This record gives sequence, C-alpha cells and structure tokens, in this order.
Amino acid sequence: MSGPILVVNPNSNAAVTEGLDRALAPFRLPGVPDIHCLTLEEGPFGIESQVDSDAVVMPLVRLVGDRRDAAAIVIACYSDPGVEACRSVARCPVWGIQEAGVLTALSRGDRFGVVAIAPVSIARHRRFMRRMGVLDRLAGERALGVSVDESARGDSTFALVEEVGQALKSDGSDVIVLGCAGMVCHRAPLEAALGIPVIDPVQAAVAMAWGTVRCSFPAFGGSG
Amino acid sequence: MSGPILVVNPNSNAAVTEGLDRALAPFRLPGVPDIHCLTLEEGPFGIESQVDSDAVVMPLVRLVGDRRDAAAIVIACYSDPGVEACRSVARCPVWGIQEAGVLTALSRGDRFGVVAIAPVSIARHRRFMRRMGVLDRLAGERALGVSVDESARGDSTFALVEEVGQALKSDGSDVIVLGCAGMVCHRAPLEAALGIPVIDPVQAAVAMAWGTVRCSFPAFGGSG
Amino acid sequence: MSGPILVVNPNSNAAVTEGLDRALAPFRLPGVPDIHCLTLEEGPFGIESQVDSDAVVMPLVRLVGDRRDAAAIVIACYSDPGVEACRSVARCPVWGIQEAGVLTALSRGDRFGVVAIAPVSIARHRRFMRRMGVLDRLAGERALGVSVDESARGDSTFALVEEVGQALKSDGSDVIVLGCAGMVCHRAPLEAALGIPVIDPVQAAVAMAWGTVRCSFPAFGGSG
Amino acid sequence: MSGPILVVNPNSNAAVTEGLDRALAPFRLPGVPDIHCLTLEEGPFGIESQVDSDAVVMPLVRLVGDRRDAAAIVIACYSDPGVEACRSVARCPVWGIQEAGVLTALSRGDRFGVVAIAPVSIARHRRFMRRMGVLDRLAGERALGVSVDESARGDSTFALVEEVGQALKSDGSDVIVLGCAGMVCHRAPLEAALGIPVIDPVQAAVAMAWGTVRCSFPAFGGSG
Amino acid sequence: MSGPILVVNPNSNAAVTEGLDRALAPFRLPGVPDIHCLTLEEGPFGIESQVDSDAVVMPLVRLVGDRRDAAAIVIACYSDPGVEACRSVARCPVWGIQEAGVLTALSRGDRFGVVAIAPVSIARHRRFMRRMGVLDRLAGERALGVSVDESARGDSTFALVEEVGQALKSDGSDVIVLGCAGMVCHRAPLEAALGIPVIDPVQAAVAMAWGTVRCSFPAFGGSG
Amino acid sequence: MSGPILVVNPNSNAAVTEGLDRALAPFRLPGVPDIHCLTLEEGPFGIESQVDSDAVVMPLVRLVGDRRDAAAIVIACYSDPGVEACRSVARCPVWGIQEAGVLTALSRGDRFGVVAIAPVSIARHRRFMRRMGVLDRLAGERALGVSVDESARGDSTFALVEEVGQALKSDGSDVIVLGCAGMVCHRAPLEAALGIPVIDPVQAAVAMAWGTVRCSFPAFGGSG
Repeated sequence: MSGPILVVNPNSNAAVTEGLDRALAPFRLPGVPDIHCLTLEEGPFGIESQVDSDAVVMPLVRLVGDRRDAAAIVIACYSDPGVEACRSVARCPVWGIQEAGVLTALSRGDRFGVVAIAPVSIARHRRFMRRMGVLDRLAGERALGVSVDESARGDSTFALVEEVGQALKSDGSDVIVLGCAGMVCHRAPLEAALGIPVIDPVQAAVAMAWGTVRCSFPAFGGSG
Repeated sequence: MSGPILVVNPNSNAAVTEGLDRALAPFRLPGVPDIHCLTLEEGPFGIESQVDSDAVVMPLVRLVGDRRDAAAIVIACYSDPGVEACRSVARCPVWGIQEAGVLTALSRGDRFGVVAIAPVSIARHRRFMRRMGVLDRLAGERALGVSVDESARGDSTFALVEEVGQALKSDGSDVIVLGCAGMVCHRAPLEAALGIPVIDPVQAAVAMAWGTVRCSFPAFGGSG
Repeated sequence: MSGPILVVNPNSNAAVTEGLDRALAPFRLPGVPDIHCLTLEEGPFGIESQVDSDAVVMPLVRLVGDRRDAAAIVIACYSDPGVEACRSVARCPVWGIQEAGVLTALSRGDRFGVVAIAPVSIARHRRFMRRMGVLDRLAGERALGVSVDESARGDSTFALVEEVGQALKSDGSDVIVLGCAGMVCHRAPLEAALGIPVIDPVQAAVAMAWGTVRCSFPAFGGSG
Repeated sequence: MSGPILVVNPNSNAAVTEGLDRALAPFRLPGVPDIHCLTLEEGPFGIESQVDSDAVVMPLVRLVGDRRDAAAIVIACYSDPGVEACRSVARCPVWGIQEAGVLTALSRGDRFGVVAIAPVSIARHRRFMRRMGVLDRLAGERALGVSVDESARGDSTFALVEEVGQALKSDGSDVIVLGCAGMVCHRAPLEAALGIPVIDPVQAAVAMAWGTVRCSFPAFGGSG
Repeated sequence: MSGPILVVNPNSNAAVTEGLDRALAPFRLPGVPDIHCLTLEEGPFGIESQVDSDAVVMPLVRLVGDRRDAAAIVIACYSDPGVEACRSVARCPVWGIQEAGVLTALSRGDRFGVVAIAPVSIARHRRFMRRMGVLDRLAGERALGVSVDESARGDSTFALVEEVGQALKSDGSDVIVLGCAGMVCHRAPLEAALGIPVIDPVQAAVAMAWGTVRCSFPAFGGSG
Repeated sequence: MSGPILVVNPNSNAAVTEGLDRALAPFRLPGVPDIHCLTLEEGPFGIESQVDSDAVVMPLVRLVGDRRDAAAIVIACYSDPGVEACRSVARCPVWGIQEAGVLTALSRGDRFGVVAIAPVSIARHRRFMRRMGVLDRLAGERALGVSVDESARGDSTFALVEEVGQALKSDGSDVIVLGCAGMVCHRAPLEAALGIPVIDPVQAAVAMAWGTVRCSFPAFGGSG
C-alpha cells in the first residue's frame, strides 16, 4: 500500500499551506495516493532571499528523513531549496517546483516566460535554469515587484500579473510559468487573458508525483 | 464538463492499443477525465522508419480535428509524429510521448539514458532532443536491436533490456527513458534491477495531461 | 552519366516554379548537371502553416521515390518539409533550403538574420534552427507580415524588405537569409542597400547540390 | 564582368597547388567565373603548426589586398589562416575551407566526423569548431598520424584513411570531412567504402564561392 | 587599510586547515593582504555528501556575517557550499574553489579534466559546471575512489593520482584541476608527470582574491 | 630561481606601456616574481582592427621565443593576438587579457558585460567568447565609440564610461570587464558608481600569472 504525497511548504506561513491545499484539491480522489500539505515550522515567514532559501535546507532534510512513509515529496518553494539533499536521504522521489514547472512548460510551448515575484530572484532562477540546461528555451523572466503576500491575492494584483504576462508574450514566450508557490489563483485568468498556457508549478510537480506514484504499484495495474 | 483524454496509437496494431489501455489503468478513477485509447486505422502495422512516422501525420491531424470533445490528446508513438501539426489544429493540449518522457526524466535525474528499439531510430531521436535543447543532459541512447513486437514481450526480452540499461547506467545515466510506446511491462522490473528511476513515456505524458485537465476546470477546484 | 538536379516546388502554384527556374539560370551551363524545376501537383497553392507543410511530405516522398534518375534533389520550401523522409528513400543527396540557406550564411558572417514572410513562421523556423544547433549565431528573425505572393513582388514590397533588413542589421546580423523560396528578386537590391551579404536559400541549396554533383563523377575530374 | 575565383594555397609547395587545380576541374566550364589556383610564395613548405598557420596571415592579407580583380577568394588550408583579416581587406567574399567543409557536411548528415592529418591539429580544429558554434554536431575527429605529403598519396594511404573513417562512423558520424586541403583523392573511394557522404573542403568552399559569384551578377540572370 | 583574506575550511578537521595554511605560504609576503586560514568548528569532520555540504551553509553565512573585517573570503571546499549565500551577506568578494579552479584551468588549456576523490561527487560537480556554462570544455572527470584523508597523502597515493591523470589526458584534457581542497601536495608532481598544467583550486582562488584585494586600494597604486 | 613575469604591450606606444607599469604596481613586492612591462617595437601605434591584431602575432612569437628567462608572459591587448602561437613556443605559461578578464569576471558575477572601445571590435570579441564557450553568461557588450587614446583618459571620458556601464547593468550584467588594456583608471570609479565589480583585464591576467608563478616553485612553499 502506498503512503501519501507530501507537499512541504518550507516557510512557516500556514496561510500559504492552506492555499496549497486548496490548489491541490483536483488531485484528491477516492483511492491512493493521498496528498498532505505540511508547513515547515522552522522556516522563515517568507522565503525571499538566498539566505532564506538556504536556511530551510537542513530542516527539510530532517523532515524528509523522518517521513519514511511518504510515497513522494514535493518541496513547494520556487527556489527549490534542498531538493538535491532531500533526494539523497529520501526513500521516495522528490520534486522541486521550479524544476517541475519549467519542464512541464517545455511540453506546452517552445519558449517559456517566467513571472517572478521580486527582481532579485531572477538571477537566482537563471542560475538554476542554466544548471538545468534549458536556457536556450527561455524567452524571458520578469518580476512583479510586489511582496509574496501581495502576489497571492487574486483580484487586486491580477492587472499587474497580466501586464507582466503580456510583456513575456512580447518577448517570445508561448507558455508562462508562475514563479512562486502561491500564485495559483492567477493561473486560469492569466491563461484566458493571454491565450497561451499558464503553468502553476505546484500543480505541475504534483501531477508528476501523482502519476509516478500511481504507476509504481502493481496493484494499480501499471505493469500488470 | 470535461471530455476524455485521447491516447492515440498511430499504428494500426490493435494489440498495441490494448497494451496502452492496460498501462493507463492507474489513471482511471471515479470522476473525470476519462482516458480513451484509440487505434489510428490508417496507420502502418508498426512505425519503424522516418517515412512510417511521416505517413501518419495527416491522418492524425484529421483525427484530432474531428475530436473536438477531447480534453487532451497524447500521440503514443516515440517518434512524436505530427505533434506540432496536431497542436495547431486542436482545441486542447497535445502531448508527444518522447517529449513528455524526456522532460519527466529530467525531473528524476541529472543525466538520462534512452532504450531504443532499433539502431536506426537513434539519430532521429537525437535530432528531436537537440531541437528540445536537452542534449547536454543526455548520457546515451542505445538500441535493443529487436522488433517492436519483441520489445513488448515481458519475460523473453527482459534480459536484453536489462543489459542495455546497465550499459546506459555505465554511460552516466541516473534515470532511464523507455524509447517506445509499448515497453511498459519492463518499467518496474528494470527500475528494480538498475536501482534508478525508469520512465514509461506514455504514462509520463498521460500524467501531464491528467494533471493539466484536472487543474483546468474551476469545478475541480484548481483555481477556486 | 549524371541525371538532373531536381528542384521541387512543393506548392501547386506554377508561377512560383517559374520564378525558381529564372532564379537558377546562373547554374545552367553547357554540360551536366541540368536543373529541372518541378511543381508538386498535390501541394496546396501556398505553404503557410505547419499543416500545409506536413501535408506535402508524403507526396514529396512519392515523387522522390519515382525519380531514380535524379543526381540531386532540392526541396524548395523554407519549411524544409519532408527532407529527412526524402533522404531516407532517395538514391541521391537531398537538400532543404532553410538548412542550406542558413549554413551558407554562416560562411559569410558571424551572426545571421532571417527575413520571414509571416510572424507565425518564426517559432517554426526557430525550432528548426535549434535542431540544427546554430541558435548561438542567430541575431534575429523578423517577419514582413505580408502574403507569400506579395513578398515575391520586386518593386512594391522592397521598401518593407529593406526596413526589416535594417532592423535585423541593428539586431547584430552581419548576413541576411531570405526566409522563403520566392524572394530572390530582393537579394541583390537588399545586399546593395544594407552593405552586407544577402543569401537566397534556393540558390544556396542549388550551389551545394551543383558542386556535389559536379565533383562526384570521375568523368568530371573530381578525383582523377 | 566578373573576375576569377582565387584559390590560394598558403604553403609554398607547388605540387599541392597543382593538386588543387586538378581537384577543381569540375568547376571549370565555358563561361565565368574562372578558377585560379595560386601558391603563396612566402608560405612554409607545409603548414603543420599554429606558428606555421599564423606566419602566413600577413602575406595572405597582402596578396588579397593586391588582387582587387578577384570575384571570390578561397584560402585552401584547413587551419583557415587569416580568413577574418582577409575578409576585412577584401572587396569580395572570402571562404576558409574548414568553415566551408564543416558547413557543407552539416547539410549532408546530422553528426560529422573529421579525418585530421596530425593528432596535434585536433585541439586547434576543435577551438575553431567551438567558435563556429557547431560542436553539438561533431561526432569525433581522429588523426591519421602521417605527414601532409603522405596523406595526399592515393593508393598507399587509403587503407589508413578508411580505418580512421570507419572509427569515425562508429563514433556516430553520418558524414565525413577530410581535414586537409590535399586529400581529395580519397573522397570518392572513402565515400564508396563507408557508404556515407565524404566532403572535400576545397571543393565545398569553391562550390559556395562559385554559386555566390554566379548569382551575384544580373548578366547571369540571378535576379533578373 | 585592508583586512585579511579569510580562507575558510568548512570541515572541522584542523589538520586540513593546517594543510591549507602551508599551501598558501607563497601568498604571504611583507605587506597586505594577510591570509588567515580558519576551521569551521560546526562543520563535519569531512564533507563527503550533498547533506554534509548543505549542513555547513548556515554556519558559513554566520561566520561571514561576523567577519566584517575581511578583505576577501575563500570557501575552501570543492563543493563550493554556501558561496551564493555568503556573497549575499558579505561586505567583500567571496570565492568558491571549484569555480576558481575551473576558471583558472580555462586560462591554461582548452579542455580540462578533474580528479575527484569519490565517484559520488562527479554528478554533483557536473551540475555545478553546467550551471557555470562550461561543460563544452570539460574533457572528463574521474574519481580516485579513496577517502579524503588518503587523497591528501603525498607519496602513498600519488601513483593512483597519476593513473587517473593519465586517463584524463587520454580523454582529451590539456589541463587538470585537483577536485578537492587538500590535494596540493600532488600538484607539482602530477604536472611534472603529465607534462600539462595542474591547478590547485585553493591556490587558484587565493590568487584571484589576492590580486583583487591588492588592486582595490588606491594606496597600492591600482588606479593611481 | 624564477625569472620575471613579462607583460607585453603589442603596440608601439610607449605611453601605454608606462600605463601598464603603473597599473601593475600592486604586484611589485619584495621577492619574486618581478613584473617587466615591454613595448613591442614592431607593433602599430594602436591595435584597432583585425589586421592590426594579426600583424603583431609573428613579432610576438619571436619575442616570446627570445625570452627564455620569463616565468610567465601576459599579452596585454584585449584582442589576445597570438596567444595560441606564443603558448606553442614559450617555455612558460602565457595569458591573454581578454581570456583572463572574462574568466575572472565569471568568478565575481553570473552575467558579465564588456565595455568595448570601438563598435567594430564587438563582433571580434564575440567570436572569441564563443570560442571560449562562455556566451551563455554574456549579458552584453557595448562600445564607447572613442579612440583608444581617449578611452585611457580618466576624467574626461569617465562620464561616457559610466553611461555605457549603466546600460550594461540594465542588460543584466552583474560584473563588468573593461575591454581594453589601457582603461585601468576607470576601474575603481566605475565600480563605485555602479555598485558591481569591475575587472581590469591586465590586472586579472597578472593576478593569475603571479599566483601561478609563486606556487610553482618549492622554494616558495607551494607544495612543501
């Protein structure tokens, strides 16, 4: 029998975790695997810098080491903190949401754009995308220039999100990735406004995790 | 309300379609989307060459144009025939399985290997992976040197599949993609034998499609 | 003895074929190889989309399979439809004009620009150039935004062609490729106006074909 | 009226120049442009090192500056000495044979191999190919390990050439470039032995030059 | 006035720090900057895994934050732990030794090889080099397969180091990087044995730091 | 005992050599290695074109061949003329300043910008950076559009240098390389004005040379 997919919010803001929980409702169906969203208690209230991101790595490693029951783990922060370390100690697959969001985008368009929250994150994301070897397909990354909290509010910030999305489309993007764990409320409206696919990275990671877990157990028929 | 995910087998061998159907059982759950596996009647009995692959493009375009009810479409041939053309006429997202399989592999390891059926396919796949811009992460591709039909038989060909998998691991692969739509029976055993993840490209594509469809409709809660 | 170089216009517009014929006059000299320009009767009147391009592949494969006398074949459409499939069935070398035009440009400058006809083609061309592995040398591609028919008219559209050419030069291009089979009338005037080389892709492909054929036969002295 | 295509042998060995002259017989037809093969008197007897290659740059620049009548210039040494400098002073296009040979190979196959004369040249060629941005398509380069003089002798060295060619084919090459100006005698036999295209870089450069010159003059009908 | 260059050994093995101190003797001259080698007390005895490497990041950030007097900081572990985070909090430049070692190697040869300690590190280093964008110049990385402690012993392990170095030379390396902070004793002997440059990454980083600090202060004449 | 580090100014303008001499004062300390700045008498008064650059290669080769006492050689021209040829004849390591400046910049930021003197140099530098394989990390190169002589004057041209620096920062540069041997007077002021590191390529090359020489001799303690 399969354990749950753990989706870990590495900041200590429980409201973000609740948002993840709602965003993942489509994956909750009768039958395994279940989806559990957790808050990393040791995390900062928000992860907004390289130091914030590095500060949660060891707590994540301990959490992952403790949860031997997990069928899959998703680290729900766009900086993908500790993904490699967690992979080295986990008994199950581990996904980072930047990685999963970008890879899913590459299945939907030829050149992708990223909506970042803060300008300071762009260089960090770019280093990560270069490490992934996918820079030839990046059309551009642009920042909203708001706080993480503001970025997650649907109505009041959508106009800004759409403006950045249009700029990314002008850069040549034919698919957009939302560059934060808490922007799912903008996914469908932005897709409608731009007429090109918009990827929520948490949903993208959980889809990969869900499919992998479902197909890994003979009882589910994957390789019967 | 959402229509089905169509998984199209572009060859006319109904046994292959039945195999796809069994492989996708894990995605069949109470509630939408449903998964329909179809045989392309106009296809050749097997797709083993560039001409075979190109010959099915226009029939696929017509099929896709006719099925306006589809919520998503997966072209279940590792040559990804007609994916761009189908995308241009479809009302819904379209996935190719080589693309989805490779991208999913990139979320599970740093360098991937591909188990091809025939040596002649390797150059074609390589061109496609260069077009994707992911060659820096390819550790190697090696062929079984058997027929498509033989490759899908579990017991009798597994020894050969394992031998090729071990060679790919020696090339530096830390994740393997099965380079054909009909090799799902080898996925779990090869993963167990090699100790690294093995990706079935049809399951990878359907996981992406399933997640995208599930998260696209407010009724399912994706952006509530 | 050597057969002709076949230059195939994959659309059914005979006026385009006649234009090719005139553009290739410089290659018609006493002695082999001869140059034959053909119209693909099954082709659409113009190739303006991915589906148009894919629709001519199988007719091209049949034509190539029938013409066993050809010494070389050039597919004269900038989408390079069916080039790989034709190569797999032909007894002689096959050139696509996008491929030949871009490669010839790389021998004349460090960074090239492409004048496309329609904006929608740019993404398709970019995928092809990424597959070729030459994106690091692309300075830019820009579209005229006219019909294929308009693009081939010398006087009335040259002002627009020059404007796009100047923009590509500002992007950093030091050589320009005309991104369509029917724009040869603009080659010399654009070269004069911009002061940098301008490549007609049909002439580029035929030059490669002509040289290859001339040098392949001992009777012509290639390796005597 | 058009002047001649100058093919400059930058070493002072007149026998090499005579070999070039014979190799280019297929391009000599009634009508312009004519092909003149020249020996650079100031050159060393053979160009076998970085210093040899750099030593001929300024003499080439002077020669090119003096020959204002040339319609095109080909520098017939696989190190492509002085090509950029010659371009900056010439009134006409200038080709290097490594550049032209590799680009022509890329129109004939997906991955190319190079037959070098001496092991010491491989790193120099590799730097040049990296500068061209085409390394993703190099399958391998291997050296004969003989003198330039030996490499040009048909019968006695062909066995060695074929052995190196087979090794390059095993490396994944589907087209071969002869990595020296004087190996044309091996082109047709090696092509026959390997069953894949073999490119002589001098013929490749002259084909490009010939086509460019032929198509540049209205009198020849290029843009009439 | 300038403070010291801090060279931080992020493991808690004081013998390693003493080795660094001896290796950096050539940089100790009358006049600033001074070189201080420190042991990170919170570090593990050796850094041999992703988790070990991540575990020292926050202690390094704190140490760097406390040492406002430093003129430059070198993190002396080949995994380059915490370099980005330290850069974000430091008042002075920060170097990682993998980064500095590889970049210095690129100034000495065209293709570099890396002598790793353990096979498990190779994938981690490769991800880092891909992030740097320098993979096109990597000829190979090979592991000694010994403990960190053994790798630092001059006489008894040199035969193994030389064997791995020869293999890297056969891979095409024309310069070698020692892939650990404690292998300086092998630098000169390996360089003598192989006849190609061998880079100690700590010395490479300190040379960059030393030059930067020396040239940053008008009193030293850098921009007088 | 170690000989001097030779820093060769390949133009014949002695004032430039004197400027180099002042810029390298920070490297002159009691003890070896000494730094000697030389003027190449055969050089042109300024190197401003491809031909100028190529014209000094053979004189540099002769100078390097004559100075068997050198412990290291730096060719102090941003075109890096003759670096490969000098390496092939020298008994000691040879650095080019473009190469060293760019590599040092890569240790200080993720994306670099280059301040060129003349627009015409940008394409030449770009070819060189592509050969280095570092284009993925170039944010931009922009020219001052002044003479070499003007570029070296501190006060009067700093406003222009700062303007170009700000534009490069807007392009995404987080570190700047001064693209000429004679701009050291702008290094510290530009760094202060932009708030990001600015690299003088001569100082960068000499730091690498100095460190290499210091660490190469057992008497200095490098591997004691």
